[in-house]
Amino acid sequence: MSLIKRSLAELIGTFWLVLGGCGSAVLAAVFMAGTNDIGIGLLGVSLAFGLTVLTMAYAIGHLSGCHLNPAVTVGLAVGGRFGYAEVPAYIVAQTVGAILAAALLLLIASGTEGFTLTSTSLAVNGYGEQSPGGYSLLSGLVTEIVMTCFFLFIILGVTDKRGTAVAGGLAIGLALTLIHLISIPVTNTSVNPARSTGPALVLFLSGEGKALAQLWLFWVAPIVGAALAGLIYRFFEEPTASA
Amino acid sequence: MSLIKRSLAELIGTFWLVLGGCGSAVLAAVFMAGTNDIGIGLLGVSLAFGLTVLTMAYAIGHLSGCHLNPAVTVGLAVGGRFGYAEVPAYIVAQTVGAILAAALLLLIASGTEGFTLTSTSLAVNGYGEQSPGGYSLLSGLVTEIVMTCFFLFIILGVTDKRGTAVAGGLAIGLALTLIHLISIPVTNTSVNPARSTGPALVLFLSGEGKALAQLWLFWVAPIVGAALAGLIYRFFEEPTASA
Amino acid sequence: MSLIKRSLAELIGTFWLVLGGCGSAVLAAVFMAGTNDIGIGLLGVSLAFGLTVLTMAYAIGHLSGCHLNPAVTVGLAVGGRFGYAEVPAYIVAQTVGAILAAALLLLIASGTEGFTLTSTSLAVNGYGEQSPGGYSLLSGLVTEIVMTCFFLFIILGVTDKRGTAVAGGLAIGLALTLIHLISIPVTNTSVNPARSTGPALVLFLSGEGKALAQLWLFWVAPIVGAALAGLIYRFFEEPTASA
Amino acid sequence: MSLIKRSLAELIGTFWLVLGGCGSAVLAAVFMAGTNDIGIGLLGVSLAFGLTVLTMAYAIGHLSGCHLNPAVTVGLAVGGRFGYAEVPAYIVAQTVGAILAAALLLLIASGTEGFTLTSTSLAVNGYGEQSPGGYSLLSGLVTEIVMTCFFLFIILGVTDKRGTAVAGGLAIGLALTLIHLISIPVTNTSVNPARSTGPALVLFLSGEGKALAQLWLFWVAPIVGAALAGLIYRFFEEPTASA
Repeated sequence: MSLIKRSLAELIGTFWLVLGGCGSAVLAAVFMAGTNDIGIGLLGVSLAFGLTVLTMAYAIGHLSGCHLNPAVTVGLAVGGRFGYAEVPAYIVAQTVGAILAAALLLLIASGTEGFTLTSTSLAVNGYGEQSPGGYSLLSGLVTEIVMTCFFLFIILGVTDKRGTAVAGGLAIGLALTLIHLISIPVTNTSVNPARSTGPALVLFLSGEGKALAQLWLFWVAPIVGAALAGLIYRFFEEPTASA
Repeated sequence: MSLIKRSLAELIGTFWLVLGGCGSAVLAAVFMAGTNDIGIGLLGVSLAFGLTVLTMAYAIGHLSGCHLNPAVTVGLAVGGRFGYAEVPAYIVAQTVGAILAAALLLLIASGTEGFTLTSTSLAVNGYGEQSPGGYSLLSGLVTEIVMTCFFLFIILGVTDKRGTAVAGGLAIGLALTLIHLISIPVTNTSVNPARSTGPALVLFLSGEGKALAQLWLFWVAPIVGAALAGLIYRFFEEPTASA
Repeated sequence: MSLIKRSLAELIGTFWLVLGGCGSAVLAAVFMAGTNDIGIGLLGVSLAFGLTVLTMAYAIGHLSGCHLNPAVTVGLAVGGRFGYAEVPAYIVAQTVGAILAAALLLLIASGTEGFTLTSTSLAVNGYGEQSPGGYSLLSGLVTEIVMTCFFLFIILGVTDKRGTAVAGGLAIGLALTLIHLISIPVTNTSVNPARSTGPALVLFLSGEGKALAQLWLFWVAPIVGAALAGLIYRFFEEPTASA
Repeated sequence: MSLIKRSLAELIGTFWLVLGGCGSAVLAAVFMAGTNDIGIGLLGVSLAFGLTVLTMAYAIGHLSGCHLNPAVTVGLAVGGRFGYAEVPAYIVAQTVGAILAAALLLLIASGTEGFTLTSTSLAVNGYGEQSPGGYSLLSGLVTEIVMTCFFLFIILGVTDKRGTAVAGGLAIGLALTLIHLISIPVTNTSVNPARSTGPALVLFLSGEGKALAQLWLFWVAPIVGAALAGLIYRFFEEPTASA
């Protein structure tokens, strides 16, 4: 399939990741039934992020490989599974999809009374005072590097075993769920520069610029972590190949 | 298998979808243990809807294809996967199954003290003042179109890869879970005209007509979204076929 | 494998079902962290029941078929998948396993201060005043029949498609999760006479006899529902065979 | 692959188990959004522990077998599936990985205001006054033995059926989720001596020694339970082989 069509599939898939993941957080994390909160909470949001990847893995995995994430694209390139020449097109498509999804989410979310936009709306990522739990820059940086490193390590391991594509979408999707179960309080969990860029940019265009000022961390840390995983996994790969 | 038998399987399956999905919402979303709410909440309801499809996919997938949803039937027809001639029989069967399930649910739910019927009972779908979170007609319309479009896009993608039927039931069921995790607060989540018709009609017959007056949206939006997905997916399908 | 060894596997598996399912309800449904209830709630209990079956399906499915439930054994016999001659041995083994598990659960649960035994302890099943949500005998009866009927219908469908044993454990386990998500408030969910007998008998031996007086319903309704499913599924089975 | 490389994979995997499982408990079990607790609770923590094993099963299962747990290594050896000669290297690697993860978790968790270290921090295991629910030494001992015994029984059963490696990671990961759903209130759930050692040792080095004094139980009970499962499963294994 042409690079354009594959990039379009990545755009659609990343749109779904941000609409579904950030959308579940914005629309359904807290929901009152009388005095009871029956919202889906951080557990539901974690599941939603994972299921966006799981469902797209089966829907477009055979079209574009279903990266949906610049860090995944870079990590796969460093790990020798994806050509560097196609990295820019994928990253652009993913980022555009994420921005469009954040804009649509803003449209839907603003359709109810009492909606107000703040610097932490749209499930944006952040650290320090922008961190959901008030975690420091250092905690955020370490968390994003380590989480993305393990995310890619899992992806490289899963896709190393040829023939288990069926389980791949499940394992990789649930890996993202797990990462959110651990780290939403620290940075709202990114491990995905495109996912961070969509909400941050839409907030900026709506007059809330704080998230955009922190966006650098959510490009640097995931890509460093992903590249690290690419290098680590190569250490394990060679002996297998020679066996 | 004859169209009659396959339609009967669709009736049974859609009965299960409405009994299980709406039933979990009505019976178990909120449940007090002393002063603690230990009910399953929107997360549990989302899981229940998805599991009705997942379980039926394995139970009747080999009998009728397990659509359980007029929008799915239409979307598969537009996508070239199902014959238009059989669409009406499937839709009738699905709608009858959903109505019967809503009636049985009313019977079970009314067997406890303090049960009262209102215009939002039986997990009926709605917008504006009938929306769980008070979301507007526009938010509801956009949400139902986009969610159903992605639901069908995923179904078309999953079933495109021949031989992964095992994963198909999982991915499609969890896609419905994901859609509910995102959008219950907006419209109570339909993406399925039959699922909307059952509770709305049973409420109407019990003297609560508001939901029936909004039912049009839950036929129009899901079918538009599903047909859209059928068209979009064809764009990706041809190059694969020629490869 | 000999009937004795297979029955022993059924005993172990049903022990796990009751220890895990009822145990999660008794030990972890409500758990206070300061003023916050972080217990697993009905959603967690539903998941636990399903996972006992899922895990045992993979652990002993190849040994005994992993019924873990007299209603399943009867339903499979009516559906023509299991010999009537072996039904009694399986039912005895399942019931003994359930009783032993309820006794061990009582031992563990009583190891903390403030534990008190009442007529609704040990996650026992019941209706009327013994129902968790105060549901009537009629609601309980209908719910148990319909839920067990669908449980067996799903089991018969899943195991009809030869070669998908991998998905079978998943689909059947999650079917039980779904059934609990719907119906815990009505009867605490049985669909399994052995699971009902364990806690009821241990409570009776501890001086709490109410549950034992209601035990008849949780033998009659699940077995009626299961036999019904066996008959219904045969209707669909023949045309497939002739195709 | 060399024993050193396989041990390194075990170290990485056990690091992930402790960082993900204990990390989700420490960082996200309770999380306030205004007055609502939207934290993941014991259900989310249970899921996280299971997903660490599920994801690593697919990532490193083909490298080291993905034990991540001294009790699993011993149980597999007793069950005749792993050589006794390699047991020490695996156990050392697992324990080192767990300690490093607990140290990193302390670094991340301490990056927010109001963090304080107590004798029950870092999701450490315990009994008596160190038990989350105040359960006695006897309850804790029985629980850990029985839970680990079933954990290994499931692992031995799953891996007995050659060719279902795809389902293996799922079933074994979800078995660990189930075990946590049942027993967190009793001992905070160990069934894994390495997982217990990491937090206990890091707490001890930080001046909180109580957990270290109870650590013996979380080596003895899981290993006894695991060895028991190895013996029990052999009883079922021989007739299958002769069939």
